[in-house]
Amino acid sequence: MAGITLINSFRVPAGREDEFFSRWRQVNTYMQSKPGYLEHTLYRSLMPDATYRFVNVARWESLESFNAAHDEGFRALVTDADWSAFPPNPVLYEVVHQGERQPTAA
Amino acid sequence: MAGITLINSFRVPAGREDEFFSRWRQVNTYMQSKPGYLEHTLYRSLMPDATYRFVNVARWESLESFNAAHDEGFRALVTDADWSAFPPNPVLYEVVHQGERQPTAA
Repeated sequence: MAGITLINSFRVPAGREDEFFSRWRQVNTYMQSKPGYLEHTLYRSLMPDATYRFVNVARWESLESFNAAHDEGFRALVTDADWSAFPPNPVLYEVVHQGERQPTAA
Repeated sequence: MAGITLINSFRVPAGREDEFFSRWRQVNTYMQSKPGYLEHTLYRSLMPDATYRFVNVARWESLESFNAAHDEGFRALVTDADWSAFPPNPVLYEVVHQGERQPTAA
């Protein structure tokens, strides 16, 4: 799979899920408008006591486009005291192996 | 997106990536044969100092099929002293939001 993948894991205090999601959507909408954005999936943990209760997996065309997207507009959105309640843990990855279920013989 | 998603993050000591990948593939091949397995992507971090240097994102049809797949055969594969070098951190998630790049007007 082409490109690079951001896996960004968030600590979200219990009871503040809606607030997190609303703020995350604001940033996500902004990032989707940037050149090089390809796709994303936001996950919520099924276990309420998971360390990272939300994880965003976002694929970008290249490291260059990913870096360029983190511009002043992005910083203005996240440099907000209320974001401090939802500390992110962003790490960049590349795909090394993929598979999917094979059709079974009828 | 239907089903549940396992996000399994692994600590992998520097220099032991090939050994990890070989062992992971063994388990992965086994799990792919199980009812309910849908797809997976294994990621490797671009930053050598990341806490979790490999992350497996695997989608399953249901919690029931996921649990059933972790059977004696699975335990026999992972109950191996050499796996202790690669501690996993498995967490189950559901998808709450997805998006992809929209075609641009020509």
